[in-house]
Parts: sequence; structure tokens; C-alpha cells
Amino acid sequence: MSQNNPMIQEMKERVYKGNLQLPKWGLVTLTWGNVSEINRELGVIVIKPSGVDYEVMTAEDMVITDLDGHKLDEGSLNPSSDLATHVELYKAFDEIQSVVHTHSNNAVSWAQSGIDLPVYGTTHADTFYGPVPNTRQLTQKEVEEAYEVHTGKVIVETFTQRQIDENAVPGVLVNGHGPFTWGPSVAKAIENSLVLDQVCLMARNTELTVKDNLLPQYILDKHYYRKHGDNAYYGQGK
Amino acid sequence: MSQNNPMIQEMKERVYKGNLQLPKWGLVTLTWGNVSEINRELGVIVIKPSGVDYEVMTAEDMVITDLDGHKLDEGSLNPSSDLATHVELYKAFDEIQSVVHTHSNNAVSWAQSGIDLPVYGTTHADTFYGPVPNTRQLTQKEVEEAYEVHTGKVIVETFTQRQIDENAVPGVLVNGHGPFTWGPSVAKAIENSLVLDQVCLMARNTELTVKDNLLPQYILDKHYYRKHGDNAYYGQGK
Amino acid sequence: MSQNNPMIQEMKERVYKGNLQLPKWGLVTLTWGNVSEINRELGVIVIKPSGVDYEVMTAEDMVITDLDGHKLDEGSLNPSSDLATHVELYKAFDEIQSVVHTHSNNAVSWAQSGIDLPVYGTTHADTFYGPVPNTRQLTQKEVEEAYEVHTGKVIVETFTQRQIDENAVPGVLVNGHGPFTWGPSVAKAIENSLVLDQVCLMARNTELTVKDNLLPQYILDKHYYRKHGDNAYYGQGK
Amino acid sequence: MSQNNPMIQEMKERVYKGNLQLPKWGLVTLTWGNVSEINRELGVIVIKPSGVDYEVMTAEDMVITDLDGHKLDEGSLNPSSDLATHVELYKAFDEIQSVVHTHSNNAVSWAQSGIDLPVYGTTHADTFYGPVPNTRQLTQKEVEEAYEVHTGKVIVETFTQRQIDENAVPGVLVNGHGPFTWGPSVAKAIENSLVLDQVCLMARNTELTVKDNLLPQYILDKHYYRKHGDNAYYGQGK
Repeated sequence: MSQNNPMIQEMKERVYKGNLQLPKWGLVTLTWGNVSEINRELGVIVIKPSGVDYEVMTAEDMVITDLDGHKLDEGSLNPSSDLATHVELYKAFDEIQSVVHTHSNNAVSWAQSGIDLPVYGTTHADTFYGPVPNTRQLTQKEVEEAYEVHTGKVIVETFTQRQIDENAVPGVLVNGHGPFTWGPSVAKAIENSLVLDQVCLMARNTELTVKDNLLPQYILDKHYYRKHGDNAYYGQGK
Repeated sequence: MSQNNPMIQEMKERVYKGNLQLPKWGLVTLTWGNVSEINRELGVIVIKPSGVDYEVMTAEDMVITDLDGHKLDEGSLNPSSDLATHVELYKAFDEIQSVVHTHSNNAVSWAQSGIDLPVYGTTHADTFYGPVPNTRQLTQKEVEEAYEVHTGKVIVETFTQRQIDENAVPGVLVNGHGPFTWGPSVAKAIENSLVLDQVCLMARNTELTVKDNLLPQYILDKHYYRKHGDNAYYGQGK
Repeated sequence: MSQNNPMIQEMKERVYKGNLQLPKWGLVTLTWGNVSEINRELGVIVIKPSGVDYEVMTAEDMVITDLDGHKLDEGSLNPSSDLATHVELYKAFDEIQSVVHTHSNNAVSWAQSGIDLPVYGTTHADTFYGPVPNTRQLTQKEVEEAYEVHTGKVIVETFTQRQIDENAVPGVLVNGHGPFTWGPSVAKAIENSLVLDQVCLMARNTELTVKDNLLPQYILDKHYYRKHGDNAYYGQGK
Repeated sequence: MSQNNPMIQEMKERVYKGNLQLPKWGLVTLTWGNVSEINRELGVIVIKPSGVDYEVMTAEDMVITDLDGHKLDEGSLNPSSDLATHVELYKAFDEIQSVVHTHSNNAVSWAQSGIDLPVYGTTHADTFYGPVPNTRQLTQKEVEEAYEVHTGKVIVETFTQRQIDENAVPGVLVNGHGPFTWGPSVAKAIENSLVLDQVCLMARNTELTVKDNLLPQYILDKHYYRKHGDNAYYGQGK
């Protein structure tokens, strides 16, 4: 596989532009975020380099790795330190094409609480089919052994043990850390980060007024399925 | 009726510009909002198309329907999925000329609480003559039968059963969903969405300090009527 | 006195520019605010016209009145409906040269609580020498008789009865309404509106953490007097 | 030592640009903030002048003092009134090269609470290795004797008595006042101010949901040391 493959060039371009969209949408301060995209057929992941200032970063700086997160070009920049988390998600969630991590302040604030994000309204239901789970804290052993790998594993564990469909709830709050979202494209994964931050904000504000007015399951069903699946009727169709 | 009617062209222009104003004023994220205008004499409603990115949307993309919400041009885009709600409001509230729906975060947060928005100050009283009502939740039967139609009907029911004048309280919070506002023009309906979001923000912040300092009825009367009705003296007159 | 007096032209220019600064600083939504300036020697007050869109307003639109608030040019626009409040403040507070009223959201939120704004920090102490008072609610008789006049009178009553020096505490929260500030110049009166909004925000946020950590009187003294009075040493002197 | 020394010119340029960055990042309202840099070999401190409008301020206006805070050029502007605080910090914390003070609203709000900022998440842990301490209030004697000097001394006392490493926790909340941060460069000291404001915001929001979900010590260790020290692996290395 050649790195001059035009499909890889397009991945680098999308990942680069996606990373720039995060601060534009107010989801990232400084360099606190990362976007990646996978192409399973080509066997590559493209991800942001670690700690590079967005004002000097170029599409060429995006780092290419294999599906285990090993750099394909020794001379390239170091990949985001969260790469190993992305790799775990790509291995376990086989339909997702992109992963996004931010420290957006509403989602981080909720992640720090350690509790799930309840479904209070249709804004949530339009994107997330159920509460957005908060993971357990990692154990000391997990942190010391392989922190970023286990961050991915605890996300997967959360979805597996609680039987949550990762395609229907395309995001998670990592306890004490922040949000990860994903989706079938870079654009959709980023959009999911934006929605997650907004619904965390709305849920917090709602709870300042009233704490127990959950959205009924049948409205959650209605809103989610008017936008997703074979009977969706929101938007302009295919 | 011809769709080249210059009055309809002007409606499309106003509805298009109104939709763009929502993100400019911070009331809409992504495509979460819609504006419509009615002309009862011409028998048409003009509304935003569903799920179209604001950056590519043009005035020509606005969708024209009859007063029951049926598209007049089969080749046009799909109308906003909330069209049926607008239609119900236009049928019941016969003086209103425009309806606006947003997911602005302060108004949604309050809508999610399921309680009415109290009158805490003159900012509220200048636009809404009394609390802004929160509807009941829809029943499962209503949701499954015709969700958007019943969203409109539950709004009308709220104003009818509680004997609220829709022209004096030109907006509502739909429980678990968000705000709808209306008015005698697109500009006024949008302004009412902005005011509703601001007064939801102010009410929440006030309640963090003190919960029971409601505005006296006689100040509500004074503020509302210095801006509305025959004895209004705010502004530059007619 | 001629309205072509260059001093009056300069007042109009300052009042016009001051009004535009309010939305620029995020203190005013729509047309919810007004700035005036007085020249007691010339016997004139210059104030914003009522309800005029900031995008079309010009310096020429500023309204000139006598010291009782009567328009000097019958053909000019209607003055801000809050003019009578400004007039009362100018009559009672004889050193102030400018009055500003906004519906900035943090100050309105606190005004709606009906309680005084405590001194929690040096940001407050640098501008306001003590708590910013909240007025009592107006009585029904006062509202019906002359609402805007009595709004001014209740502010003056608050400062008189509680023996607060209006030059040391250059602002007030009107119960259920919002902030009025003043100062020795348009620039200073506007700055005081900005500070009042910021310290309302900070006080609310502080109270979410701890409610009783008031600033000691000797630090209030220190901070206020390092910026004000004969021994001030903040800034570049005269 | 000549003030035309190019190293001093570069300091003035960095301090000037650093001061402008504060309002750009939303950390400073009006002129409420100051940045300084020290060069111990040259025996100089460069600091912002007091109360000068950022729109007219130039790099030439930056004030040069000796290590005790005495102006080296009698004709220059007055230095920031907080200079004496900076001097105390430079004397006690011998590795720091820059000090920044702001009245950013989230950090001030927390400073006004008088309590330490807990470590709720990895956003905090990436920059501050432990809670950010809140100082005790100054005594009346300290305030009257030498307010700004004692502000510096109480910061140093806090770190000394509580055995906090100022290089691992590069910032403090001064009770009833606001944040001071520092670092090995102007850029880093400013970045620390931004992070401190963000983590104050996140901590407050987290506490609205849950109050006791502190980050485990081993995750604090992990996050801090993946960015700092010999084994750091975040970023692109040296």
C-alpha cells in the first residue's frame, strides 16, 4: 500500500479539516481533541499528531498507522497520545469509520460526575437512542499497564456488558475524563460530539429546574426512528 | 395560483432570511429549527426544507404547500418534518402569520422541565403577558398516530383549556421538546424566539438566587401594555 | 440655546456611540437599553430614541430634551420610554453626568431576585464601594400614576434611606426589572454597567460553591481607594 | 545594562503580545489583567503599565524594573499596581520566568469561595498536579501595611506551609480576589491561566450534578506525568 494512494490523501484531508472544525465549533481549547478515520480495506488509520498547534498544522502532518496503531512512516510526527483508545474502538465496533475525542466543557463536566446522561428531551433522542453511558473508573492496574488501551477497553466493556448498541448510541462519557464519539464518517462523528456537548448542557440546566421529567420511551422511539433506519422521514432521503 | 406570484417570491425570501437569522442569533445549532409564513388569502404556507445545510440552502429551496401542508410542487424538496405542527397552529390561531421552532438551549432546557415559565421580570412582561405554558406530554397513542399533528394539537389544547390568549402569549414550551413561537410577521415570530430563550436563561439564573420573587400583576400589566395595544407608548408609533 | 451648539453635537455623538457599545459588549439584546448624558449648564439631556433598530440609528436621531425631559424639538423622534427615570436620577444625584440602563442577563437575573448583590471579591470592590442595592417593588399606585418617574424615585429613595453614596456605588438593581448605572461620563457609566453584569455573574457562580465568604471590609476599603479618591495609585494618574 | 539590549526588547514584545492574548482568549475584561517576564541574569522584570487601554497600548509602553520592582527609567509609565505581587513570586519561586494575573470569571468565582479547587478530571490533571490551593484571607494589618506585597507573601506561604511544588501546581486562587498563574515562559504562564479558568468552570458544572467523584490519585499521576518530566510522551518531544 502506498501512502500516495489518493484515498489516503483524502482521508488526511478529511481528518485535518475535521480537527480544525472542533475549535471552530467551540468544542476544543488549545490542542485538546483528536479526530481519526479508518479504512479497514486499506488497513490504515489516519489521526491527528500529538500536541501540534492548530495554527501551524497541515493536512500533511496527519499520521498514518496500521490497524494496530503502528506508524507506517517512521519519519512522521508522533500520533495523538489517545491513538490506542481509537484503535480499541475500531477493533470492537466494526461499523464505525471515525472516532472523535474532545474536552468540550459541558461533556467533560458531565463525564466528571461519573453518572449516565439521562434522556430529557428530543434533542438527545434525535441522535442518541438512550442514555449516554458513563464508564467505571479504570483500576490502578489498568492505568499503569496500558492507560490508553484500557480507556478503549472500558468503553467497549460498558457497551458490551450493558448491551448498548454502539451504532444507536454513538458516544460515551469516560468517567473523570471526557467524551468520545464515533460514526460512519468524520462529519457524523464530529456532529455527534457537538450534539453530546449540547445535550449535556441542556440536561444540566433542566436539572436546575426539575430532576425527574424523563422523556417517555415512546417519544424516544419516535424521534430516533424518524431520523434513523428504514422508516426515517427526516431530511431529503437518499 | 401561480408559484411565480411575486407575493410568494417575497414570502420565500423572508422565510429563507428568517431561517438564516436563527443561527446568527445563536438560537439554532446545525439545522435544528424552522421558520414558516402563511398567506391565508393565497392559500399557501412557505416553510424551510427538512435537514438542508444552511450554507447551501437558497431562497428557491423554500417549500410551498397548501393550508393543509400538501406540497404544491411535487418536484420541490421535502418540507420540514415539523410542518404538520405549523399547520395545526395556523388553523387554530387565526391571527398569526408566522411560526418559528428552535432547539435554543435555554428554552429547550426549560421545556424539558415540564413546568411553566414564571414571570420574574419586565423583560418577560414586555413580550409575554403571563407565564409561558409548558404542555402536557403526548400520549403513546398520539405519538404513534400522528406525532407532529398532535404536537400542534397539544399546544392548541393548552391555550384553549387554560384560556390563554395566543396573541398575548406568543409562544409555548413543548414538554420534553422545545419552544414554538409565532407572531404577526416572520420578524416578530423570530424575535419572540429570541426573547423566550433569554427569559428562560434569566429565570433559571434568578432561581439560583431566590425562587419566589414573582413580578406583581400590576407591573406585568404596565409593561405589557406600554408596548402593546391602543395605549402603547413604547417606540415611534405607527 | 441652539441645537447646533457644537457641545450638543458632541453629546449626541457620545450618546450615539455609547448606545452602540452596549450590544458590542454583550450587554444589550435587540433595543433593550439606553444611554443618556446631561449638561446642566446648557440645560439639556441627550438620550436614545425609543425602540429604534441599532443598525439604522444615527447620531442625528438622538433626542434632546430640557432638564425635565421635555423635547426641545417637536419634530424629533420619541425619546426612550425610560427617560423619566433618567430625569429623576439627574435631579437627585447632582454629580452624575450620564445614566445607562440595560437588560444585560446577569444583572437582570440578579435584579429579579429582589436581594442586594453582596461584595464577594475585589472585582466588585474596585468599582462599587459596598453591596449594590436592590430596590423595593413599586406599589400599584406608583405604577399606575407614573411608572417611569417612580422607578427613578424608588432608586433615589433606596440611596437616601439607606445612606448610600451614589458616587461610591454608581449603580442599582431595580427589583424585577434590571440595572441602572451612572457616572461622571458616558464612558464610565457604560463601564459600570459592564462591571455590574460581570460581578452579578461572579457572585452567582461563587454562591454555587459557597455562600458566606464575604470580602472583609478592610479589603473593600483597600481596593476601592487604590482606584478612587486622593490617594488612588492605580493607573497613570492625571 | 542598557534598555536597548535586544533581549529586553524581546521581553517587551513578548509581554506586550501576552497581554493582548488575554482579552482575545476571553480571560480579561477591560484592563483587568497583567503579564510579566523576568530575566534574572540581566536583573530585570518587564510588566504591563497600570490601567492603560489595550487598544492604545504599545510594546514600548511596557515597564522595565529591577528585581525589587523599582523602575529603571523614571520617565516610563507606572507599572501594574500588582507588580509587588509578581516580585514576591519571582523571589520565592526561582524557576518561574513569567507571572500572569487575570480576573477571568470562572477562576474569580471560585477564588471568591475561599476553598481549594478539587481535581475532578484529567483536564485538570494534565496541567495541575493536585488541587489548586485557595489562600487564606489577608489580615487587616497585612492589607494596610503593604497589600500587594502581602498578596505575594500569602501565596508563597500557602505553597510552603502546605508543601506544594509551585512547578507542579503552577497557579493559585487568591481568596476573594482571583487567579495568579506562572510558568517557564510567558506563553506557558498564559496557557495555565486559560486552563485554570476552564477547570474552574468544569468543576462548578460537575458539582451541580455530583459532588464527590474525585479523580483517583493514580490517574492524576498518569495524566500529569504523560505530559511532564523525563517520561512524558505527549506531544512531539524535544
